[in-house]
Amino acid sequence: MQQDVQGKVDSRAMREVNRSIVLDIIRRGGKVSRTDLAKRSTLTKPTVSAIVDDLIARGIVQEVGFGKTVATGGRRARLLEFNDASAAYLGLRFGVHTTTVAVADARGEVRAIRETPTIAGDPHASVRSALGLLDGALEEAGLPRARLESVGVTVPGMVDTRSGTVAFAPNLGWNDVPIRNLLQQALELPVIVHNVTNAGAIAEGRVGAAKGARSYVWVYVGHGLGAGIVIDGQLFSGTKGFSGEIGHCPIGDEGPLCSCGLRGCLETLASGKAIERIAAEAVRGSEPTTLSSHSAPIDASVVLDAARAGDAVSQRILRGVGQHLGVGLSYLINVLDPELVVLGGRVMEASEYILEGARASVARHTLRSSKVEIVASTLGDRAGLMGSVIAAMDQSVRSYRIVATAERMA
Amino acid sequence: MQQDVQGKVDSRAMREVNRSIVLDIIRRGGKVSRTDLAKRSTLTKPTVSAIVDDLIARGIVQEVGFGKTVATGGRRARLLEFNDASAAYLGLRFGVHTTTVAVADARGEVRAIRETPTIAGDPHASVRSALGLLDGALEEAGLPRARLESVGVTVPGMVDTRSGTVAFAPNLGWNDVPIRNLLQQALELPVIVHNVTNAGAIAEGRVGAAKGARSYVWVYVGHGLGAGIVIDGQLFSGTKGFSGEIGHCPIGDEGPLCSCGLRGCLETLASGKAIERIAAEAVRGSEPTTLSSHSAPIDASVVLDAARAGDAVSQRILRGVGQHLGVGLSYLINVLDPELVVLGGRVMEASEYILEGARASVARHTLRSSKVEIVASTLGDRAGLMGSVIAAMDQSVRSYRIVATAERMA
Repeated sequence: MQQDVQGKVDSRAMREVNRSIVLDIIRRGGKVSRTDLAKRSTLTKPTVSAIVDDLIARGIVQEVGFGKTVATGGRRARLLEFNDASAAYLGLRFGVHTTTVAVADARGEVRAIRETPTIAGDPHASVRSALGLLDGALEEAGLPRARLESVGVTVPGMVDTRSGTVAFAPNLGWNDVPIRNLLQQALELPVIVHNVTNAGAIAEGRVGAAKGARSYVWVYVGHGLGAGIVIDGQLFSGTKGFSGEIGHCPIGDEGPLCSCGLRGCLETLASGKAIERIAAEAVRGSEPTTLSSHSAPIDASVVLDAARAGDAVSQRILRGVGQHLGVGLSYLINVLDPELVVLGGRVMEASEYILEGARASVARHTLRSSKVEIVASTLGDRAGLMGSVIAAMDQSVRSYRIVATAERMA
Repeated sequence: MQQDVQGKVDSRAMREVNRSIVLDIIRRGGKVSRTDLAKRSTLTKPTVSAIVDDLIARGIVQEVGFGKTVATGGRRARLLEFNDASAAYLGLRFGVHTTTVAVADARGEVRAIRETPTIAGDPHASVRSALGLLDGALEEAGLPRARLESVGVTVPGMVDTRSGTVAFAPNLGWNDVPIRNLLQQALELPVIVHNVTNAGAIAEGRVGAAKGARSYVWVYVGHGLGAGIVIDGQLFSGTKGFSGEIGHCPIGDEGPLCSCGLRGCLETLASGKAIERIAAEAVRGSEPTTLSSHSAPIDASVVLDAARAGDAVSQRILRGVGQHLGVGLSYLINVLDPELVVLGGRVMEASEYILEGARASVARHTLRSSKVEIVASTLGDRAGLMGSVIAAMDQSVRSYRIVATAERMA
């Protein structure tokens, strides 16, 4: 996510940096005066005033009355405040069953949410259907369309983030869909596309269980299985945006056929659909289980409910899935050495049994298990949508810093 | 490897950046005049002159005669050149059997190498023994001890790079050894410690098969198995410096006991010691093999030689090891989505059979196999030592750039 501004420090770059410092203080700091800003930024008062005048002219900052009389006497200072309505961001989540549209304000607070069924196999129709909800959502949010600055999109599948193309989303029936282009043509705004695991990882780090962690892995256990990776505060998407595909790591040459066309994939043993397949087998078995009272096909949520209600077969299914999941987590831990692993997605919302199985399995398969914490997401199923909103904001709000790098320019 | 210099761009930071730009041009560019430098850096001539005067005073740059008369007439320009002898760097590789000392000049060219047996289980004695070779190596290199700027150390084991401690190096018999402190006390110089996979990855990217690649994995197949990871041009060592431990990824609950104390580790099936164990089993089998003419224990190099000489059993052993190695590579590829995988280490120096098995296995276990190239190292067994020298240089030579980051300061 980092990019070079330029090799040489010139005055334009300095202005950009100083502007972002002043804006950061106003955004975080509540009501502040120009004098406060100069003190806290260590910039000169004329520099601060020029930046503030520009921010006011653009509607990003507003004046909101006067501060207390200063101790040395003289005029009372005008106070400045960040204008929450100065920008709007659009988050779009294309889920397997439901497409969700969220409109957030300049602080990233979601003000309106709308839903519509996903039209499987037809990305154009799905986009049209989602955009049909936009005006209503903007109205509910109290934000004019002209303030929309950028769009974040989340898709369950393999996304080439650079080109904004969905390479392969079997559960949506999408193949090589240029989703960024489709939306840019319709909205004439910058669009950033992430897969659901990367979006979840972003959101969990900003407002969820990974807040404060510099390097962590966010594991999505839903219909499928995948991981979003954050390294040193930055999302790591791999060379082509295909990182974190632990669902397709082999854990044997045999096993059920995976949706990707390979055999032996971890996803066939540790995912929502694995739970459903194993539950169907259990119902045909001899051991009594409350799952038998449900008509086929049995949804993963039925197994989660049955386990919590005390059904021993369901509990065992989930512990077994957790153990296989733990094997996948041990790959991530051995390869990445993260601070923290967060388990998110629909299936993890309600399963202490999976968590228990996963922790036991990780302890058996890593050298330093005790040092890597494994916790459940605190965002639940909202993580992907929130990640899409945050990604949209990050597209247009930038902070700057200077780094020293050991890498030669040669 | 990146670190913040400061949040605000001030004139000191600008001087640092400009100085590194001028020095980079001189280091790369052969003989240049001050006028050339001003043109190529787009800095003013007085700025360039002040920087050059300082570099000359410090002995980093030297004047070397005159250029051609300039077209517009006037004085001939003094030419400037980087002084190769202005600094010396020390590389130390503690290998399982041999400790190697290398002295390099200011360009990183290795000018002298000395070796001594590693004293297993005694880090203090190993350090004393290595440092006993230093004066002779410096003399051979023609570099005075006062020019030594920093030290790079490579160890086969788990290294906490931040504290410079070797947490666990079973093949050296080292446990919690503060190797950086030991060397800093003896030499009073900055010391950087890497494990052999990270050092190999650094070297391969700078001067080997991964040159030009931004994101790649360097896999070490020696006595053990591990990986060094480079992401976007930077070494990625994980939170505690323990990344890339693919040797201890589980590929089953059973299997031989690993040196780490766990069972089912990939290293027990894909490494030099795996080759040796499987070869010993093959000799006891019924199929004829030239390995039978060697006395036990059979070294991995014997199997590599026998395979090249046409022994079918040896070839099959190596292909099988390659297939298991490929499973490990598929974990790395699925998790990291690298541009390139480079296979290095003693065992890979001579085995097309392992490479063949590994490529076939990766093709079977990844979604995008055709797009990730898998190649053999071009540095062979020298990669670790060269990496230690490069790491030492990187400690003292820094380049600067400004980056924009999507990450908030909040």
